[in-house]
Amino acid sequence: MNINNMASKKIKVGIVGGTGYTGVELLRLLALHPDVELTAITSRGDAGLPVADMFPSLRGYVDLSFSDPASANLTACDVVFFATPHGVAMSQAQVLLDANVKVIDLAADFRLQDTAVFEKWYKMPHSCPDVLRDAVYGIPELNRDSIKSAKVIGNPGCYPTTVLLGLAPLLEQGYIDFSAPIVADAKSGVSGAGRKAEVATLFAESSDSMKAYGVAGHRHHPEIHAQLTQLANADIQFIFVPHLIPMIRGMLSTIYVKLTDAAQAVDLQALYEQRYQHERFVDVMPAGALPETRSVRGSNQLRIALHKQQAAGYLTLVVVQDNLVKGAAGQAVQNMNIMFGFDERSGLEVLPLLP
Amino acid sequence: MNINNMASKKIKVGIVGGTGYTGVELLRLLALHPDVELTAITSRGDAGLPVADMFPSLRGYVDLSFSDPASANLTACDVVFFATPHGVAMSQAQVLLDANVKVIDLAADFRLQDTAVFEKWYKMPHSCPDVLRDAVYGIPELNRDSIKSAKVIGNPGCYPTTVLLGLAPLLEQGYIDFSAPIVADAKSGVSGAGRKAEVATLFAESSDSMKAYGVAGHRHHPEIHAQLTQLANADIQFIFVPHLIPMIRGMLSTIYVKLTDAAQAVDLQALYEQRYQHERFVDVMPAGALPETRSVRGSNQLRIALHKQQAAGYLTLVVVQDNLVKGAAGQAVQNMNIMFGFDERSGLEVLPLLP
Amino acid sequence: MNINNMASKKIKVGIVGGTGYTGVELLRLLALHPDVELTAITSRGDAGLPVADMFPSLRGYVDLSFSDPASANLTACDVVFFATPHGVAMSQAQVLLDANVKVIDLAADFRLQDTAVFEKWYKMPHSCPDVLRDAVYGIPELNRDSIKSAKVIGNPGCYPTTVLLGLAPLLEQGYIDFSAPIVADAKSGVSGAGRKAEVATLFAESSDSMKAYGVAGHRHHPEIHAQLTQLANADIQFIFVPHLIPMIRGMLSTIYVKLTDAAQAVDLQALYEQRYQHERFVDVMPAGALPETRSVRGSNQLRIALHKQQAAGYLTLVVVQDNLVKGAAGQAVQNMNIMFGFDERSGLEVLPLLP
Amino acid sequence: MNINNMASKKIKVGIVGGTGYTGVELLRLLALHPDVELTAITSRGDAGLPVADMFPSLRGYVDLSFSDPASANLTACDVVFFATPHGVAMSQAQVLLDANVKVIDLAADFRLQDTAVFEKWYKMPHSCPDVLRDAVYGIPELNRDSIKSAKVIGNPGCYPTTVLLGLAPLLEQGYIDFSAPIVADAKSGVSGAGRKAEVATLFAESSDSMKAYGVAGHRHHPEIHAQLTQLANADIQFIFVPHLIPMIRGMLSTIYVKLTDAAQAVDLQALYEQRYQHERFVDVMPAGALPETRSVRGSNQLRIALHKQQAAGYLTLVVVQDNLVKGAAGQAVQNMNIMFGFDERSGLEVLPLLP
Repeated sequence: MNINNMASKKIKVGIVGGTGYTGVELLRLLALHPDVELTAITSRGDAGLPVADMFPSLRGYVDLSFSDPASANLTACDVVFFATPHGVAMSQAQVLLDANVKVIDLAADFRLQDTAVFEKWYKMPHSCPDVLRDAVYGIPELNRDSIKSAKVIGNPGCYPTTVLLGLAPLLEQGYIDFSAPIVADAKSGVSGAGRKAEVATLFAESSDSMKAYGVAGHRHHPEIHAQLTQLANADIQFIFVPHLIPMIRGMLSTIYVKLTDAAQAVDLQALYEQRYQHERFVDVMPAGALPETRSVRGSNQLRIALHKQQAAGYLTLVVVQDNLVKGAAGQAVQNMNIMFGFDERSGLEVLPLLP
Repeated sequence: MNINNMASKKIKVGIVGGTGYTGVELLRLLALHPDVELTAITSRGDAGLPVADMFPSLRGYVDLSFSDPASANLTACDVVFFATPHGVAMSQAQVLLDANVKVIDLAADFRLQDTAVFEKWYKMPHSCPDVLRDAVYGIPELNRDSIKSAKVIGNPGCYPTTVLLGLAPLLEQGYIDFSAPIVADAKSGVSGAGRKAEVATLFAESSDSMKAYGVAGHRHHPEIHAQLTQLANADIQFIFVPHLIPMIRGMLSTIYVKLTDAAQAVDLQALYEQRYQHERFVDVMPAGALPETRSVRGSNQLRIALHKQQAAGYLTLVVVQDNLVKGAAGQAVQNMNIMFGFDERSGLEVLPLLP
Repeated sequence: MNINNMASKKIKVGIVGGTGYTGVELLRLLALHPDVELTAITSRGDAGLPVADMFPSLRGYVDLSFSDPASANLTACDVVFFATPHGVAMSQAQVLLDANVKVIDLAADFRLQDTAVFEKWYKMPHSCPDVLRDAVYGIPELNRDSIKSAKVIGNPGCYPTTVLLGLAPLLEQGYIDFSAPIVADAKSGVSGAGRKAEVATLFAESSDSMKAYGVAGHRHHPEIHAQLTQLANADIQFIFVPHLIPMIRGMLSTIYVKLTDAAQAVDLQALYEQRYQHERFVDVMPAGALPETRSVRGSNQLRIALHKQQAAGYLTLVVVQDNLVKGAAGQAVQNMNIMFGFDERSGLEVLPLLP
Repeated sequence: MNINNMASKKIKVGIVGGTGYTGVELLRLLALHPDVELTAITSRGDAGLPVADMFPSLRGYVDLSFSDPASANLTACDVVFFATPHGVAMSQAQVLLDANVKVIDLAADFRLQDTAVFEKWYKMPHSCPDVLRDAVYGIPELNRDSIKSAKVIGNPGCYPTTVLLGLAPLLEQGYIDFSAPIVADAKSGVSGAGRKAEVATLFAESSDSMKAYGVAGHRHHPEIHAQLTQLANADIQFIFVPHLIPMIRGMLSTIYVKLTDAAQAVDLQALYEQRYQHERFVDVMPAGALPETRSVRGSNQLRIALHKQQAAGYLTLVVVQDNLVKGAAGQAVQNMNIMFGFDERSGLEVLPLLP
């Protein structure tokens, strides 16, 4: 029996593409969300299959079956999440909006306002630039007010969330010296590659080993660059090197920035603590501490540590999150909570799993 | 701020020995338990240290510091959990009972009614056989009524929980042919060895490798044997071989039994489904399915699958649980819920983390 | 430069299907084999690609490119290894034999003498029963003399090697009581599933978790059963449950047998030590010791430990090997060494990688 | 039987401190070294224990027992390796040198020529500055000529080897613009922490998670800084952040440098290929390729890849090695080979273990 059936007044939620990791993660978080009724989960390839047959972890909590995208009555929902490959959300967004359904896309369709950049990196034309123009980039700690009234959310990429929340307090104060590039050396668990049958992410290929990838160019580079430029109101040089780490979940970004002379006289630890003091999901570590990715495993927390370097004028930031939660599904639920006026923490009060 | 401070009428809970894995797991589950106020967590070596400094996963959820066992006011609690080495609970139980405090011991002090067996395997005399006599072996699905009125619970070992819940339906019906030994080939994640500084459980020693251990004799053998004998009302032969598996959490027991002739004519799948149909935390898998340990990661679920062998008359049972939850801290909370008349699921509605 | 070009008189070796794990493992072992010249490595899909581009671990040691199976001049080889899916070797064996080329098949085509059993489990008719009849089952420690003169070797499955070498000394002496089934609870690292793009063996699916599989029937069951029956000269009951373990390489089989009354009076430790005293690649552990899989990582060693159970009359055997070496490619090279009169250890004196 | 006893004219080798990871790795490499006779392996705590009892991977290859440091006749050796904590080698070096025994220290005693820096970072005075003055920093690809005639080698730290070999071609040509700091974001497998019983490196603590550490200051920082300064003949700014990765072995350093204007016009790929064309153990990856750590697992190879960044003027270097081989024991054996005029590859022709 689905324990969600007990409640009274809930919003109807649909998920398009429920068979990937962001899909199952949405289900884990929404199954116990007090204000949500899961209404439809679509999958072209697995229509008819009970969701809990594919993901036995959901046995007893989710009794829906996958439905075919064509027949799923998504326009009856209040909000639809797209946990799909790039390009799907933009093909369906207008129909949903016309039916007064809100859209939260966990792919890239509504992240880049510059459609030329989108087309260059995603190898497809953008099919609804009008919708895109009104879409909001969904990092609540930066854009909460816009999210409240948004009808379409471009949920950020996992890497961008760490870099942007890591740098925002400095950028807002003009404390970064742009004569040197910002360097983000980022590390991700393997679930970031998705639930796709590929040799490179087999256990026997990616366990007990690591590598850099996408050094020549990664899709999150333009996304981060665009947001940084907007936050800085300046054109900046940005170097981004992602790495694949043999862990299921978890992301750690080590960010190197040159501080302005003014910034070097400031108590940056205090600045960060004040900037995020009312943010439930952003945690500034005590001075001297360093966060492990497991300290956020399964939770929507993001933790930041600051360390001044011996090399004069440089600051190192270490930012961790669970790539599937604050880096994807959790942030999407947080956006939904804001859009519908729920407590921002609803469904997200899940403690990290340690060990 | 500790979110537990908001509630009104809650029981006061103490934890003795909060620095091990069962201790931090109790904290994870109890921090959000609606009927519980965490009152004291003791640690001789770390008194004064904020709990969240040792376990940053608890930042924002637990604001207690470790207190010294000598000064912690445990007699003011309603219940005290012992997440300590063997021998500690029995030295303190009588004082707590005298103060009307209930005791749940996650170590072995109250698991074995035969003190001679206890002394043989734990190399210490039992210091309170009177208390032991009234203690209840805490598997709710087998002993719920006794647990309701118990003042002292011997919380079962991790391995025994899988073997006993796996075999109970057969034993209750007399369906096992004892002319052959019961064989339990059990596999545990490394957290089962505890949070102790030892070379053998270092990452570089135990990753990407596995081994059998304790083949000559493991402390859970007499515990399981005693319970099996009681359930069977017969003396049985029992072979138990545990293995260490390179995963953090998770336990899988593969159990081989010879069925009686009568049992071979029975629909055992139906028997198991009926036996556990009202048990929230025991899940009988559909015929033909096999459970993965990750399907219960972080949750109090235990899953069982049955498979008849080609070799005539044999049945194989596959049982999985999270060794730190249903195998330890989760079962302890479940016992507490029963002892205090709470909803048995309180604090335990946590979905497994997959992937 | 390929360091193999320096030698004088070597046999020419071909490998059909060099892109899987047994293929690359053959390359690792043969690249430094003093008596071997690697002549051709075929791959339908990757013809033309330098082998070291796919497997950078071979850079500087193997300078061949994959060649198309159609154009590779395999009949000019002295021996051809098939590291292919089931069914390929039997389609090409006769042509090679006609050209006086020896064949070592690492798949199942020449393992099962009963073609009806083969067809049942591998879902294809056997295309060359005549060749099969002369093929030798390639476990050197059991069949060395036949291997010396063999032209076709059916290289054993990984699981069968552990079970058969573990039980051979008992079976040869008639020391097993067949009134109880032999139970083999076997555990394998994920590389055993091969280098195929599949969701189930992705890192994010199979890390930090384990499961039983193939309980209803595994292809190695009939293979082991046939060999056991032959060794025992009796029909036996055999229960086999394989498990998938989150490690790259390594296999551990825990075997439970009932001893005859005669066997219970015998020093079985001494029996095993004598049986294998001249075998370089079979190591009987000292009494009381238990082997870890990492103690054989990357090497052709197989280690066996014996433990008598408290339950009267039962013996537990623990056998470990590297599934890709003694369980596949290493054993194949050992067979080749015997077939060509080389030192049986040539190319196989590689120490295990620990940690 | 120890297969090393068969040879005729070999040097006598002693190892002080054979129970850690660099110790067992020396044993793995030296056991099959054609020019070496293992003479003594010392361990204060385990004297008398057969080495193969502690490390069963060596069964059949090493039949020595650990001897007490006091009674081991090290002065009869030709060379002694110190695989000990910092401070041990410098206390014994003079005695060995007086007996004409060469010394290769895998700890830090002979790495830093500035004793004040040594004392600051290692919290002990340097006890033999005279010996230190003649010691050679043992990276063969940079200091081969000095190593040939050296009597004492300070074997480099694991991190320094990656950074120095990664940057040497640029530094030798004056191609780095020192107006920006060099940033080395380095990642190491857990074996780098050594075989010490500590909670932080337990499997259950460090698996499926990662972290930065030593951001406030790591002992390899002054070591790298001193060598960079010497190579550059200039004072440079250097930022170094190490990270702990859930893998047994393997190290990957991602290095960010600003190029001079002159360098930007140069074919740096060609520069690197030429610089290292005769180096057996340094492999420059083809343009565009990126190395995985597993491509060097268990071998003495170090691989380098170069990638120009979009941010004008910056170059990213990715360098991988096995931290226990080229980062420790393998490099030590390479140094020994040079010191004694052996083929530099002797004992080191071991192919990487992949998968």
